[in-house]
Amino acid sequence: MACGEFELIARYFDRVTSSRRDVEKGIGDDCALLSVPEKQSLAISTDTLVAGVHFLADIHPADLGYKALAVNLSDLAAMGADPAWLTLALTLPNVDESWLESFSDSLFELLDYYDMQLIGGDTTRGPLSMTLGIHGLVPQGRALRRSGARIGDWIYVTGTLGDSAAGLALLLGQAELSDPAAHEALLKRHLRPIPRILQGQALRDLATSAIDISDGLISDLGHVLKASDCGARINLDALPLSEPLKQNFSSEQCLHWALSGGEDYELCFTVPEINRGALDVALGYLGVPFTCIGQMGPQSEGLVLLQDDRVVEFNHKGFDHFGS
Amino acid sequence: MACGEFELIARYFDRVTSSRRDVEKGIGDDCALLSVPEKQSLAISTDTLVAGVHFLADIHPADLGYKALAVNLSDLAAMGADPAWLTLALTLPNVDESWLESFSDSLFELLDYYDMQLIGGDTTRGPLSMTLGIHGLVPQGRALRRSGARIGDWIYVTGTLGDSAAGLALLLGQAELSDPAAHEALLKRHLRPIPRILQGQALRDLATSAIDISDGLISDLGHVLKASDCGARINLDALPLSEPLKQNFSSEQCLHWALSGGEDYELCFTVPEINRGALDVALGYLGVPFTCIGQMGPQSEGLVLLQDDRVVEFNHKGFDHFGS
Repeated sequence: MACGEFELIARYFDRVTSSRRDVEKGIGDDCALLSVPEKQSLAISTDTLVAGVHFLADIHPADLGYKALAVNLSDLAAMGADPAWLTLALTLPNVDESWLESFSDSLFELLDYYDMQLIGGDTTRGPLSMTLGIHGLVPQGRALRRSGARIGDWIYVTGTLGDSAAGLALLLGQAELSDPAAHEALLKRHLRPIPRILQGQALRDLATSAIDISDGLISDLGHVLKASDCGARINLDALPLSEPLKQNFSSEQCLHWALSGGEDYELCFTVPEINRGALDVALGYLGVPFTCIGQMGPQSEGLVLLQDDRVVEFNHKGFDHFGS
Repeated sequence: MACGEFELIARYFDRVTSSRRDVEKGIGDDCALLSVPEKQSLAISTDTLVAGVHFLADIHPADLGYKALAVNLSDLAAMGADPAWLTLALTLPNVDESWLESFSDSLFELLDYYDMQLIGGDTTRGPLSMTLGIHGLVPQGRALRRSGARIGDWIYVTGTLGDSAAGLALLLGQAELSDPAAHEALLKRHLRPIPRILQGQALRDLATSAIDISDGLISDLGHVLKASDCGARINLDALPLSEPLKQNFSSEQCLHWALSGGEDYELCFTVPEINRGALDVALGYLGVPFTCIGQMGPQSEGLVLLQDDRVVEFNHKGFDHFGS
């Protein structure tokens, strides 16, 4: 069924039930109009997802609607920001109403969960892809950055690493598991990553730096090292691995995925010795494990990986578009 | 030559020479951090441009870099907002350095002209397209909206209408002109539209509604009528047409393009009788013509088109994606 662009947008995306108080004008004019409270900074990030590049072309639209927003929320989490508004630019090859309904239902469920509001967007015809613009608020001067880590700070990650890469391998048929519960668990970690919003906010006054792990621990920690002019020592034996991962794959495979699999959407952050006690309390309440995996060192040492207290080499890098 | 994604981004897009004071952190972290001054509202808009849909696949990258930003600026103009920050999500089929250089040079030239700053983005591999997120500032309560027009308000447009559609016809080889100056002028109107930023700001306290003409006068004025619960009478004889258009095309063709050609990126706005004198002064200074083309009427009358004081029908609508 063909229907006009504006009608289509209205039907699936203009469904604000209760408007946020900071939204003066949402969807329906040339721009949205927003008010930012005093003493708050605005955090803005944008991400594009292209079919066949960032997600499988046959992904279920409900999974896509969830994940597209979740990976953008993860960027807010890494700054310690509170989610506020979303713009969605959606490019579709055709109008498939059941696809749109499933995609938008899933997107709005997650928007509502975080008390966010869709404030605008664009619908165009073309190869399936989307760009989300996410906006959050953070008290002035308290945002987490990549650049604040100091020598001696302890390096932590939330949750477990490598599950998402294993889930992708299962999706692609590159691996098979006889245990259906483990299969489901790893698939879910790939398709429905949970952005660490609460953790990011709890870290505001405790962590000296933070980043979310989207390209893989080595690649993303590398950004922190560069921004903070530091090196780091990582204890590979300490990397947190889930039971479904450990029990079904070789330790070498687990390590590979944990270091460079990507799409974990966990936070990697640094904490000075003096804040470790407060950290245990603040993150302990939130129910998601967090693990110390190493310590920041001098820049001259670079990134050192230790296994059984011995230095090891690792040749795989995180995913890098246009990589040679 | 292949190069890494981050290197590529750094080389062509991370070239801020002087940072705006309201940018706490620009490119280079998970989010940009911005501060919005007190008593200012934030205006946000997002637009996607897809090769083969919104621009010809063989467009010169300098024209594309200009126009992608200009059409987004036009949305800010329609709100009376002052341009501030841009996010750019760019999807490229491959790395073509001369293309990137030309595109980004042109984009940054326009950014600099409006004292804007690129605060973030994303570069991905895929079919050529881009999504821009534009952010502007407007004093609280003074933004122009589509919804404020009242019965009796006079309807104006800036500049001339239909030139862009004629320029596109020339580009596509659907029309030919023997006059090279007229050819150039119309082409330029299509490739290098000038966003009416100054006009929008000057209209803040004078106009009761405003919109930019991107889909064609009839389509866009229709949004104003709907949002303002009004009808309108448009005097077709008053539509402002440029000399290159009038002298080279039939009056029927000119009218068609002026009403529904789209991509004019002029402002259509409404002004109450009492503000007309102030309008003449405020816009007169800015050097771009502006023309009264009709008057708002009761909603029950709908949109009435008059030619030689007689009602005429017009069957062509503005461009509507997914239209049946």
